[in-house]
Amino acid sequence: MKIVDQHRIGKSALLLLLMDETEEVYSEQFKQLNWQYCTGKVGSMNVQKIVAAIETAAKRNEIVREDLYREMHSLYHATMEAISGVTRGQTQLGEILRTVGLRFAVVRGKPYKNAEEGEWIAVALYGTIGAPIKGLEHETIGLGINHI
Amino acid sequence: MKIVDQHRIGKSALLLLLMDETEEVYSEQFKQLNWQYCTGKVGSMNVQKIVAAIETAAKRNEIVREDLYREMHSLYHATMEAISGVTRGQTQLGEILRTVGLRFAVVRGKPYKNAEEGEWIAVALYGTIGAPIKGLEHETIGLGINHI
Amino acid sequence: MKIVDQHRIGKSALLLLLMDETEEVYSEQFKQLNWQYCTGKVGSMNVQKIVAAIETAAKRNEIVREDLYREMHSLYHATMEAISGVTRGQTQLGEILRTVGLRFAVVRGKPYKNAEEGEWIAVALYGTIGAPIKGLEHETIGLGINHI
Amino acid sequence: MKIVDQHRIGKSALLLLLMDETEEVYSEQFKQLNWQYCTGKVGSMNVQKIVAAIETAAKRNEIVREDLYREMHSLYHATMEAISGVTRGQTQLGEILRTVGLRFAVVRGKPYKNAEEGEWIAVALYGTIGAPIKGLEHETIGLGINHI
Amino acid sequence: MKIVDQHRIGKSALLLLLMDETEEVYSEQFKQLNWQYCTGKVGSMNVQKIVAAIETAAKRNEIVREDLYREMHSLYHATMEAISGVTRGQTQLGEILRTVGLRFAVVRGKPYKNAEEGEWIAVALYGTIGAPIKGLEHETIGLGINHI
Amino acid sequence: MKIVDQHRIGKSALLLLLMDETEEVYSEQFKQLNWQYCTGKVGSMNVQKIVAAIETAAKRNEIVREDLYREMHSLYHATMEAISGVTRGQTQLGEILRTVGLRFAVVRGKPYKNAEEGEWIAVALYGTIGAPIKGLEHETIGLGINHI
Repeated sequence: MKIVDQHRIGKSALLLLLMDETEEVYSEQFKQLNWQYCTGKVGSMNVQKIVAAIETAAKRNEIVREDLYREMHSLYHATMEAISGVTRGQTQLGEILRTVGLRFAVVRGKPYKNAEEGEWIAVALYGTIGAPIKGLEHETIGLGINHI
Repeated sequence: MKIVDQHRIGKSALLLLLMDETEEVYSEQFKQLNWQYCTGKVGSMNVQKIVAAIETAAKRNEIVREDLYREMHSLYHATMEAISGVTRGQTQLGEILRTVGLRFAVVRGKPYKNAEEGEWIAVALYGTIGAPIKGLEHETIGLGINHI
Repeated sequence: MKIVDQHRIGKSALLLLLMDETEEVYSEQFKQLNWQYCTGKVGSMNVQKIVAAIETAAKRNEIVREDLYREMHSLYHATMEAISGVTRGQTQLGEILRTVGLRFAVVRGKPYKNAEEGEWIAVALYGTIGAPIKGLEHETIGLGINHI
Repeated sequence: MKIVDQHRIGKSALLLLLMDETEEVYSEQFKQLNWQYCTGKVGSMNVQKIVAAIETAAKRNEIVREDLYREMHSLYHATMEAISGVTRGQTQLGEILRTVGLRFAVVRGKPYKNAEEGEWIAVALYGTIGAPIKGLEHETIGLGINHI
Repeated sequence: MKIVDQHRIGKSALLLLLMDETEEVYSEQFKQLNWQYCTGKVGSMNVQKIVAAIETAAKRNEIVREDLYREMHSLYHATMEAISGVTRGQTQLGEILRTVGLRFAVVRGKPYKNAEEGEWIAVALYGTIGAPIKGLEHETIGLGINHI
Repeated sequence: MKIVDQHRIGKSALLLLLMDETEEVYSEQFKQLNWQYCTGKVGSMNVQKIVAAIETAAKRNEIVREDLYREMHSLYHATMEAISGVTRGQTQLGEILRTVGLRFAVVRGKPYKNAEEGEWIAVALYGTIGAPIKGLEHETIGLGINHI
């Protein structure tokens, strides 16, 4: 099953969340392109914790260098754009009495044919959003892409 | 290849856009669940045209009844939420000098186990957003879900 | 004094807040149309508490079924739209150093002539918004309407 | 029937739109308080035209002085706040394929007990919002208040 | 070095933050125009604290009268507009995992040639915004202007 | 007169707009740091034209490479952030009946001590915003900063 599309970093990040392939399938496809990626889970009523969970995962998996602000800045804006897709309007959760359960994927690679376009980063989110009561929720998705 | 997940109307709508299966594969899976769906394409600098393209496709494919405001109202809000994921901030395109090329999917069905939850509608968008110059663009995605 | 207009669920909800009629006058007019309604009060710097107060009142008065997500989802979005009228910009209160004292009304009924349009819900808010100091405030209003 | 409440300029502006009293009833009550007011109608897919209609009415009825920026500035912000209640999210109409039919009221007066609080202005809007097709619409309301 | 421009209250407020002149230079120039001003510093992850710091400074320096709502209302909106320049999108800091270190200036005066335009207030902000880690930040600025 | 501060690219861009120094003073200071910059003017009711004017100036002055999307993407987001400071809320002008007259500055350079932080871009805006009538306007400012 093909997940990684070398000219579609966003689609690749999304399929990481939507397909039930084994970790080996993913990692091999990303390795062939020399792209970095990681996935993770976070459930929270705080947008802050979602941003932090994604940052921590990206740093631990060496997708971004935590001592370089330009990399953290790029990741931050990609993350906030993904969150705006999840929240659809105001980037608020608990403040407006809702919560999310999300899986996330971060992918870093060179999606453009022109080598000078360099590296880009994609943050994809998929899960549920709703009232803080089990079942009172529906699906939600978000994607942010930035040059890095 | 499994696309339709009977408890995940949003994921099903997204995979319609991301997987390269034949129309028959799609239609058979949706038929089994007795769900309606349609897909289409729209490229524009006007958010208005995107909303209209989705509405027109949904009406022609009899996913919504155009003479019932409650159905059009439900579709409209699902569409606007999907667009907010695509635009990430302000629901504006040409007004802020950007354009999109999108494929869309609309799915109507019963995704909850409890039959009383009734029907829901999902609008998914996937494509590119960027400057009105070929190639100066990156991917974008959006998903809106509403009860209908 | 006429408060309930059978084709204007929003106006009816607002007049519940603005007119000083007795509870009997209200309840009789709503009963004639077979509409449900409730009113309440909430003062807070937390948007969350306003949403919760409205939800709780609507559940207790059996205007919505709390075990049905489609009903809670409909009420939630109507409430958030009403709050956006109150907050005019960002749905934030204490976070930006302001507070509200509100009365609210929730009305559920069939406002359209076409019976197929079914039930709709209106959430109306009226009160004051301002600094967390008595008197440093002005009036504010909001109305959200959704199909249910 | 009492419409004007001398400490509630916003409620007074709203009741101008919601009550079916004769013009004489209104004008007498406002005259007693020495407040200025006007009402009008506007239907449009352009927010611009709504702002312009309100400005024009307020200028013609000498509620604001059109040669004084501080008065026009005050009216403008009150109007935009009222529109944010009507649009609930993004101050866009035709751009996102919706239209409004509104009645508006502008009231200028001294609603605070303390005379030093001076004059304030209220802009109230009430009508329908929806698809640009007759009947596919629901009610909407907005209120903006500013010192002048 | 000229800082105060009698027809540019916003520029004057900004230069207070950007120029390294002595306090005497500032105060003399403002005194000549009979304008009031103050400056201060605030670092926080809470927008609330920024609003409060500016209010407190403006009240202590008698730029606004804290017992008059019309003055506090004018200052509040000018402050929120300045903050929207600093935050560029959502008026949130810690909620979305970022923090600011700001200097602020508040100026009150008559910037228009026409004396009837009366007094206006400008709130200017300049500093850094970024992750809550020293150095992972860049500059930010905001300006809000209102009639008072 | 010192305008360029090697660790403050945003302040440098702003002072380009606020100080009345000769072009030579500017160009020499930027040359010493090996930074690129340009300035320009634009008056419009269309946000689109402001974005286009800044892009065109930045391309002509070779501050960004128009054939590289990563550079145009970086400039675009810095520009939109600057515009959000100017518009304070919704990135709309004529749509909500207002217009701007702006000067802009774009600066590209290395503002961080750590050489690995590489190049950043700052877009600064300063001018007036108001009704489309001469004089009914006040000052406005915006600043956007991005890694490039």
